[in-house]
Amino acid sequence: MLYLNEKDINKCISLNEIMNEIEKAYKIYEENKFHMPDRIHVDHKNKTILYMPCFLEDTFGTKVLTVFPENREKSKPVIDGLMLLNDYDTGETVSILDGKTLTALRTGAVGGTGIRYTTPKDVKVVGLVGAGVQGFNQLRFACEARDIEKIIIFDLFKEKLPAYIGELKTEIPGVEMVSAETTEELLKESEIIITTTTANEPVFPNKKDLFEGKHFIGIGSYKPYMREYPDALISVLNKVYIDTEFAKEETGDLSQPIEKGLLKDSQIETFGDYLLNERNKEEIVKGTTWFKSVGMALFDIVVAQLIYEKAKEKGIGQRVEA
Amino acid sequence: MLYLNEKDINKCISLNEIMNEIEKAYKIYEENKFHMPDRIHVDHKNKTILYMPCFLEDTFGTKVLTVFPENREKSKPVIDGLMLLNDYDTGETVSILDGKTLTALRTGAVGGTGIRYTTPKDVKVVGLVGAGVQGFNQLRFACEARDIEKIIIFDLFKEKLPAYIGELKTEIPGVEMVSAETTEELLKESEIIITTTTANEPVFPNKKDLFEGKHFIGIGSYKPYMREYPDALISVLNKVYIDTEFAKEETGDLSQPIEKGLLKDSQIETFGDYLLNERNKEEIVKGTTWFKSVGMALFDIVVAQLIYEKAKEKGIGQRVEA
Repeated sequence: MLYLNEKDINKCISLNEIMNEIEKAYKIYEENKFHMPDRIHVDHKNKTILYMPCFLEDTFGTKVLTVFPENREKSKPVIDGLMLLNDYDTGETVSILDGKTLTALRTGAVGGTGIRYTTPKDVKVVGLVGAGVQGFNQLRFACEARDIEKIIIFDLFKEKLPAYIGELKTEIPGVEMVSAETTEELLKESEIIITTTTANEPVFPNKKDLFEGKHFIGIGSYKPYMREYPDALISVLNKVYIDTEFAKEETGDLSQPIEKGLLKDSQIETFGDYLLNERNKEEIVKGTTWFKSVGMALFDIVVAQLIYEKAKEKGIGQRVEA
Repeated sequence: MLYLNEKDINKCISLNEIMNEIEKAYKIYEENKFHMPDRIHVDHKNKTILYMPCFLEDTFGTKVLTVFPENREKSKPVIDGLMLLNDYDTGETVSILDGKTLTALRTGAVGGTGIRYTTPKDVKVVGLVGAGVQGFNQLRFACEARDIEKIIIFDLFKEKLPAYIGELKTEIPGVEMVSAETTEELLKESEIIITTTTANEPVFPNKKDLFEGKHFIGIGSYKPYMREYPDALISVLNKVYIDTEFAKEETGDLSQPIEKGLLKDSQIETFGDYLLNERNKEEIVKGTTWFKSVGMALFDIVVAQLIYEKAKEKGIGQRVEA
């Protein structure tokens, strides 16, 4: 059995390879060649365990994550856990991958793939709202997907930004990085805006003209009571692209406007459909675009399987005698 | 992070220590000092994944098992998987244990603990119906709990018994072992009878006098449509002892007679209550007794935690850099 920790995973695979793999996952999604039960939540005293199983045609596995919000104060990762990868025929666990690294990378890659197809090729400025682990990875992938020259960051806890920007500069050298005083300022100056907050209320003012012509990548808001975007965004959009149909129920960014009748079903399209079928994408990305992700176990299993294959090929990882 | 495979686990802990630990688990159960969500089943094309989470007051974890019935023909274990043991405060995975070994041992120990308290001290003959991995482990624990001199085995596939008995003799030397032609013959000659089958119909004839004065340990029948014991057993019983309240719904051995009005709620007692509170056990074990187990995640976490602590103490296991 092969154990792959954070270092191993990063040695195995490039950011672009992960984005390519996410595109393959969308193909599997659209062709319905998978079996993915609903994400399972187990809660106890502010501790959450998530079980995310998914079966493909030749492999299956479960991502088991712990979500411990109080870890923030302990300088421990809020999201931790393992990805278990199993042999399709016998059920044996063939590999265990660090779950927080897989989650960070595949979620970053989902955002990056969104950027690849819902923004113009020549965008230069990206804004990030929410300076956490996930935002960090979103920016890494954004800079792979486009030639970004400037990054603007907003966070409620402004005091942590200098250190955060310092780390980012090591990871993504040669890009100008500044902090913004308000999200309105960030909106005005950015072409792509990525949101990775745990907000329950929209993080932007509800002003229509602020949103026009911008490109949004929504990563936070993964529960019906959570929201990052105000109604104003919807009023200037043609369509919102979602990673999975389940997003309509799972994120308040969609479920709330749907309930209020502000967002129609015809305005919602799966990203896989958009990606794989004929669309005038060059024309579409000239307008305002919104890609909204809630994630799914299918992304994990597809990316984990590739990492495992590459690790075997390259002799990376720790062999454990099962 | 410490990985403990089958060999490691067996080096860490003795059978008696596991039975003692199961007794502690009953105490935790009766004192309600745990949080155990329902066992979660995920099914796909004759493949099953089980997630069995449990929180104690200072640790938590999940047993993730795969159940692949077709593995029988492949000489691979039908039940496989991992036990994940987590730090209570941060959620980090501190240890991973081989799930099939843990399951076999703790289920064996649950049966053995049943024998410790529901049979007379001087029983000498034990019968086993169902010659599989689980039966093998039940017999190991039975021989720890009592001075067994003779083992009688019945299985529908008689041809596999010589090899099975050969292996058993290596594991448990100095005990006479024979096979029985029928379960009726086995019943007549045994004092303790352990059943570990996957039967959907009772494996014994429905004759009252066959059951009188005998001691039954029921391990199979873990679904409402499964059954090992006929109604006749209930007619000669005072009480049935169950490991968890949930057994009343989960096993057909109880749910079917309850539904028919043959088994009253007053005849069902949790083993923890029986074990921990004043009972005239010497008198009780002179009559017919039935201990029925369906298992629960609480047993896994309690036993896994002790194995982990012993492994650390003794320097056993494979250290994995997380």
